[in-house]
Amino acid sequence: MALAGAVLDEITAVVGDRWTSTPTELDRHGQDESWHHPLPPDVVVYPRSTQEVATIVTVCHRTGVPVVPYGAGTSLEGGIGAEQGGVCIDLSQMNDISRVSIDDLDATVQAGVTRHQLNEYLNPQGNMFPVDPGAHATIGGMAATGASGTTTVRYGAMPHNVLGLTVVMADGRIVRTGGRARKTSAGYDLTRLFVGSEGTLGIITEVTLRLWPIPEAIAVATCTFLDVDGAVEVAMAVTQLALPVARMELLDKAAIEAVNKFDGMALPIAATLFLEFQGIHGAVDACAHEVRRLVTDAGGTFEWATDAEDRTRLWHARHRAYWAMLAMRPGAKGWPTDVCVPISHLAEAIRLASLDLAEVGLYAPLVGHVGDGNFHLCYVLDADDAEQFAAAEAHYERMIDRALAVGGTCTGEHGIGAGKRAFLEREHPEGIEVMRLIKAALDPLNILNPGKVV
Amino acid sequence: MALAGAVLDEITAVVGDRWTSTPTELDRHGQDESWHHPLPPDVVVYPRSTQEVATIVTVCHRTGVPVVPYGAGTSLEGGIGAEQGGVCIDLSQMNDISRVSIDDLDATVQAGVTRHQLNEYLNPQGNMFPVDPGAHATIGGMAATGASGTTTVRYGAMPHNVLGLTVVMADGRIVRTGGRARKTSAGYDLTRLFVGSEGTLGIITEVTLRLWPIPEAIAVATCTFLDVDGAVEVAMAVTQLALPVARMELLDKAAIEAVNKFDGMALPIAATLFLEFQGIHGAVDACAHEVRRLVTDAGGTFEWATDAEDRTRLWHARHRAYWAMLAMRPGAKGWPTDVCVPISHLAEAIRLASLDLAEVGLYAPLVGHVGDGNFHLCYVLDADDAEQFAAAEAHYERMIDRALAVGGTCTGEHGIGAGKRAFLEREHPEGIEVMRLIKAALDPLNILNPGKVV
Repeated sequence: MALAGAVLDEITAVVGDRWTSTPTELDRHGQDESWHHPLPPDVVVYPRSTQEVATIVTVCHRTGVPVVPYGAGTSLEGGIGAEQGGVCIDLSQMNDISRVSIDDLDATVQAGVTRHQLNEYLNPQGNMFPVDPGAHATIGGMAATGASGTTTVRYGAMPHNVLGLTVVMADGRIVRTGGRARKTSAGYDLTRLFVGSEGTLGIITEVTLRLWPIPEAIAVATCTFLDVDGAVEVAMAVTQLALPVARMELLDKAAIEAVNKFDGMALPIAATLFLEFQGIHGAVDACAHEVRRLVTDAGGTFEWATDAEDRTRLWHARHRAYWAMLAMRPGAKGWPTDVCVPISHLAEAIRLASLDLAEVGLYAPLVGHVGDGNFHLCYVLDADDAEQFAAAEAHYERMIDRALAVGGTCTGEHGIGAGKRAFLEREHPEGIEVMRLIKAALDPLNILNPGKVV
Repeated sequence: MALAGAVLDEITAVVGDRWTSTPTELDRHGQDESWHHPLPPDVVVYPRSTQEVATIVTVCHRTGVPVVPYGAGTSLEGGIGAEQGGVCIDLSQMNDISRVSIDDLDATVQAGVTRHQLNEYLNPQGNMFPVDPGAHATIGGMAATGASGTTTVRYGAMPHNVLGLTVVMADGRIVRTGGRARKTSAGYDLTRLFVGSEGTLGIITEVTLRLWPIPEAIAVATCTFLDVDGAVEVAMAVTQLALPVARMELLDKAAIEAVNKFDGMALPIAATLFLEFQGIHGAVDACAHEVRRLVTDAGGTFEWATDAEDRTRLWHARHRAYWAMLAMRPGAKGWPTDVCVPISHLAEAIRLASLDLAEVGLYAPLVGHVGDGNFHLCYVLDADDAEQFAAAEAHYERMIDRALAVGGTCTGEHGIGAGKRAFLEREHPEGIEVMRLIKAALDPLNILNPGKVV
């Protein structure tokens, strides 16, 4: 317990007994879902309102104590590790769906609302929030990391679906950005500056979101190919024709094997696209017809998942792919990569990464949001094998350098966190200086999630 | 000529004789397309490369000379007025389409490329850049102001279609943001910070854009209604069902009258929706069928513009609506308003604005991007009638206050410029302080478009 008793007294004055410093809770809050080593905070606090967060941050600002916001802990780049200890602000008790307008298809929720909770609330009313990173994340965490995922090819990522934010700044000030209008040119786009800033510029406590109607028709198909190239060829054609698929997910043979085993599926062991079409009936039919033609042209099979249960099972399995891969090597640690490239370079990016992988002899199944040019090779590594980690690190570095050479990015959606700081510098050698100026302007004492991103 | 001769000598060393200080050119560069009084710069410079811009800005930074970037001068909020004189950087000679990838549907262009120029290049290859503010704007200007327009309901505004930027910072540094990946989580979203910053944070010299294929099917319809309410009812239903219309433009009776007169059209004098559907054939048919049903339910007429020439004429007329309105009062000045509200408040926002307008007796036809909740009443005012301007100002203020009260914005797409600074403060009382911190961090000497936005 490195935190001064006086600070804890002030925090107690704000939240009463809604804080903990038991070692298991501290460890849990310093550890995300990836291989990153836990970096526990000194105390975990559970505020219930923006005002409580503001008061806590004011105390931390005055006393120079680091503050790390925490949603559901599902991030993958060590973004929640408390590198300098301090206060972890766990937002899970800020879970009110504060306002939903069905007429305007928007909602305002507290940061700790999870996407499942929100959709369970919305779905019976015929609406949905479509951004789907797979993980059981909070909306606040998804906003803070600029999450995307399986449906981004159709509905966009968080930057496209967040209309406004309430943010607690480093000095405890409360700032509201954006609003409820579908578009605005009112000054600098603070909303999209805070979205993706990973808790380093402010703590997001409320999010106003764009909602979508549940489409009248949903159709799902699985398509298998002789190799990954065939699947990527289809993804490229779909993108070039701007066919409005709702999801287009690639799994390689190794990923299919893992999913089959973990979820008791019996999918053919082949490079596979999971496709989803959403919209009004005629549009879904027309789109599916076109895509089917492209799949057939590329030598693939096309099979409908006809009933709702099959569809649910399929996406459930896709969402658990990461855990399925980990389960192939019990006790192993996962390290999901995240490069994203212009789509014409996708086939080569995957091919070179796979060849390289075979040479270094690592196990790393592949899943990909291929409509966006984004794919994840997931290294599954023995926790104690430093050599494997070093090999993975070197392999990843080569993969990132190839991505950067063709105009791609070191992270399509997982963010920088602690794990990619060196690569951010490589990707944006001039931009990182501008980011640092902004960080210094908005958090001059560097108390907000220190050591992350910049 | 307030500029020191030594500064001009240094600029001459960079651009040779590509500068002017003739009064007509200075006046032209200090005047946008709205009522704002001209605020001419001291000199207009025509660089041809990012490096030239950087060198000029370096000189200005060292000597404390203001810099105002200029694209095509089509803005509407006085954003290009040189409030403190200085150097106007006219980017019109930076008009290279530097790179187009048809495979990736992206392009990199210099800031002075106009959207017409880009589309004339792309269309024969089957592609397009869809963002359409109506005006004959440059891509750099559209990025700097975060432009949107008639197609935003389908393709998004500039923030959604800009993948990366080259920006010259206040001290002359060159920064590249974003990249060519369709999405990235690599650090703070500098791209969307500069997009919409109206030349106050940096000078955009190159833009990497997302392109789109020209859809296989395009269908256009005009729908007339007894009153504006019926048209807005349809817009609301279309939005709530997320029907993928490509354009949905409202014109009130006064706007239709102006358009008929100016462009020799014979449209029925009624509240009218111009609708466009784009996509693959089956999808366009399905969408149009649904929208037609909604129009009929709302008591409207639905008429196809069947041939391509009719369609072109219709959109041409819509694009010239502003000039058509001005032509109704020869010698008058235009002042287009720009509030944007949650769509359920749109009908009331328009109704109250119209009632108020009738009371104050101003002439102000209405056009609206109603799928986004954005509409423009365009005051057409006698240039010398201060009373009319005062009445318009008071009317606009009431309209904005009503918009802000329902979560809307004072500007959906025109930006803050010089004209809306007080309203930005009203809309974002806390946010403007954050914007000022960012401005001070990135432009501490306040040389970039001083006096604008913040």
